[in-house]
Amino acid sequence: MQTDSGKNLSARDQKVIWHPLTQHQTADAPLALVKAEKEFLFDEAGNRYIDGIASWYTAMYGHGHPDILQGVKQQMERMDHVVFSGFTHQPAIELAERLLELLPDNQAKVFYNDNGSTAVEAAIKMAIQFFHNKGEKRQTLIALEDGFHGDTFGAMSASGLSVYNGPFEDFFLKVERIPVPTQENLNEVQNRLDELLASGQCFAFLFEPLVQGAAGMKMHQASHLDELLKHCQQAGVLCIADEVMTGLGKTDTLFASDQLSHAPDLICLSKALTAGTMPMSVTSCSQAVFDGFLSQNNANGFFHAHTYSATPWACAAALAGLKLLTGPEMEANRKRIHNKHQGFIDKMKSHPGLKNLRCQGVILAMELDLDMARYGAQRNQLFQHFMSKGVFLRPLGSTIYVLPPFVTSNESLEQIYEAIESSLLLFGRR
Amino acid sequence: MQTDSGKNLSARDQKVIWHPLTQHQTADAPLALVKAEKEFLFDEAGNRYIDGIASWYTAMYGHGHPDILQGVKQQMERMDHVVFSGFTHQPAIELAERLLELLPDNQAKVFYNDNGSTAVEAAIKMAIQFFHNKGEKRQTLIALEDGFHGDTFGAMSASGLSVYNGPFEDFFLKVERIPVPTQENLNEVQNRLDELLASGQCFAFLFEPLVQGAAGMKMHQASHLDELLKHCQQAGVLCIADEVMTGLGKTDTLFASDQLSHAPDLICLSKALTAGTMPMSVTSCSQAVFDGFLSQNNANGFFHAHTYSATPWACAAALAGLKLLTGPEMEANRKRIHNKHQGFIDKMKSHPGLKNLRCQGVILAMELDLDMARYGAQRNQLFQHFMSKGVFLRPLGSTIYVLPPFVTSNESLEQIYEAIESSLLLFGRR
Repeated sequence: MQTDSGKNLSARDQKVIWHPLTQHQTADAPLALVKAEKEFLFDEAGNRYIDGIASWYTAMYGHGHPDILQGVKQQMERMDHVVFSGFTHQPAIELAERLLELLPDNQAKVFYNDNGSTAVEAAIKMAIQFFHNKGEKRQTLIALEDGFHGDTFGAMSASGLSVYNGPFEDFFLKVERIPVPTQENLNEVQNRLDELLASGQCFAFLFEPLVQGAAGMKMHQASHLDELLKHCQQAGVLCIADEVMTGLGKTDTLFASDQLSHAPDLICLSKALTAGTMPMSVTSCSQAVFDGFLSQNNANGFFHAHTYSATPWACAAALAGLKLLTGPEMEANRKRIHNKHQGFIDKMKSHPGLKNLRCQGVILAMELDLDMARYGAQRNQLFQHFMSKGVFLRPLGSTIYVLPPFVTSNESLEQIYEAIESSLLLFGRR
Repeated sequence: MQTDSGKNLSARDQKVIWHPLTQHQTADAPLALVKAEKEFLFDEAGNRYIDGIASWYTAMYGHGHPDILQGVKQQMERMDHVVFSGFTHQPAIELAERLLELLPDNQAKVFYNDNGSTAVEAAIKMAIQFFHNKGEKRQTLIALEDGFHGDTFGAMSASGLSVYNGPFEDFFLKVERIPVPTQENLNEVQNRLDELLASGQCFAFLFEPLVQGAAGMKMHQASHLDELLKHCQQAGVLCIADEVMTGLGKTDTLFASDQLSHAPDLICLSKALTAGTMPMSVTSCSQAVFDGFLSQNNANGFFHAHTYSATPWACAAALAGLKLLTGPEMEANRKRIHNKHQGFIDKMKSHPGLKNLRCQGVILAMELDLDMARYGAQRNQLFQHFMSKGVFLRPLGSTIYVLPPFVTSNESLEQIYEAIESSLLLFGRR
């Protein structure tokens, strides 16, 4: 195969690349992006798009933020990757210290992984082995319906949202799913949970706190979730908060778990952790979980590793990101965006074409009052409408959601809202 | 928790970090590294160590190579991460084009993941779904005894080398293991393989070609492995080469698979791919595998994704790495190191304290003629001996292996060999 630099990027792409989440027989040619800056993406032809989902909730401080670039460049002059078993280094230590200052008080130790899926895999394995080390064999994971936790076998098993998991279901962990708690079903869900807990077979309860991302930014109340954690923790079952999407300032609090009175035993972070630069994730845990692996017996340790664990450049990006996150500018931005979202909800809440307008922190979501497949022609029409308005959003069927970088200007927010409003015309719902 | 900058790094580390592959009750405090340059690592106290395993086979062009740094910095000025579904970009395209030029001719498409485990998970899922899309339900993966393929549930299932997999075995995929083929057992292994293939239940054969890394750099002959691939491909079962460790110039060829006459259907790459900078991996495949997912039916597509898939900075690091790998300097270095290793083998091959001296490309391995647990006091004594000689090696029980950066000088190689020779004294094997 010859490199063919003369052709445009989209055509070259189609010869060599297999994209994720793509049916290549029917998908449009991919759009080639050549530049990203603040809340903007730029294509080959010079068109500009507002990155309305911060590139899958990663680039929360805006693309190419100078503080992030500077932090990484400084580390580049010092040290690249080294083995993280037996060795340690300043960026990993500083990042762990800083995260533990910010995470719920019960979090005591940081374990590094490479992405959201592997953060969840590590948490699940920790929970299984925690009981195994005590001589207990527990086989069942409790998870929420419509949860999404990643695409590796363990993480995939835990995902109730199995859009296209059909080929793999025979290979899954044993997972019992409970409904997302609401005012109406709370008693029922608690009863179901108590049954599961009474079996003595459950090792952990895994959940996305407050907002289920891939399910279409479905939101639930902290107080309802809190009740479930109370039952689990009373039964000695470990609670794992998957904050891969929700963590680091996207909800009204720094972490969604901050809104719970029962702190999770384990917390998974990724995505925005490295501020849109490179893969890294964290599984943090309580001292009690960590202590469950201490022994004179080597085999009671956690023999799980990824080669690039705690790689210094990623730690440097994360440290620069946390500094921004906790500074006054981003705090003001988060409030500003939340208020703008609320204003849009207030304006549109009685519109007959929209349902379930909802907001948590900088996350805004709603449904078009239409039946629409998660992936399909109508959904693609909606996607193309947004792009034609200079806005990048990824509707999930009829669910439209916005999760913009914190630096998104009011003008850009207005452009996003207008793109949503005008989309109602597409389907005659004005 | 307060940041405590005054204390030394090792002490700070122990308060906040859970390290991989570590029993924290008995492990020594981690050694804090502060700098890495070429084949050298430097600790807090200013001590220098030769990185005899290229930081888990990642930093093959040496730490902090200016071409790698420059490649990443240039990309940093252009674009950070963007969603890789629906969008594409030049670094991902150029990297895929370049990889397909270098990989075996039958490789046609590149799918991006974040690390070795997820590259293998994607390959396994592709193989299962390949048959599922044809209406065939196949449940069994064939793998080599003592193989290692990662630590997520799917990858872990495939790993015959289950040092501490006890807690998780109830959750594994169905895997049938066959012995690594040798001159002596080849017929027997072929017969066992034929039995498995005749069941019609097998979707893939997964293997580390030529060198099984975590097993202790065990080596087998290409011609023997080739026979197994022939049987699998005749039976229509997909062959997956896990070249996460072996790929990119570590063996006598650019890829270990280059020494096979039956090209694998899928190939997994990671580790050295990004030249010791950040996590990224690739699952490449033949056109036939890719075509098995093309359909008017969306669900026949591969709905697997990691958020940072094909992230531009990692692609830039990989492109700079491939340029180095295929240049005359690294080619000469690879030959030079191989010849030096051979010289050491010739010198030591009749030493009674060493067994199984072996070499493939820049990979040198041997066993001390002693029974020793993979992790334990004697192994740690050996590790500390090497460190005291200014050499970082990670013996696996009594197996000593060396896989140095290509840029390692002859003087540094001599220092490594001398550290190995003097280790024989430790256990009275002079």
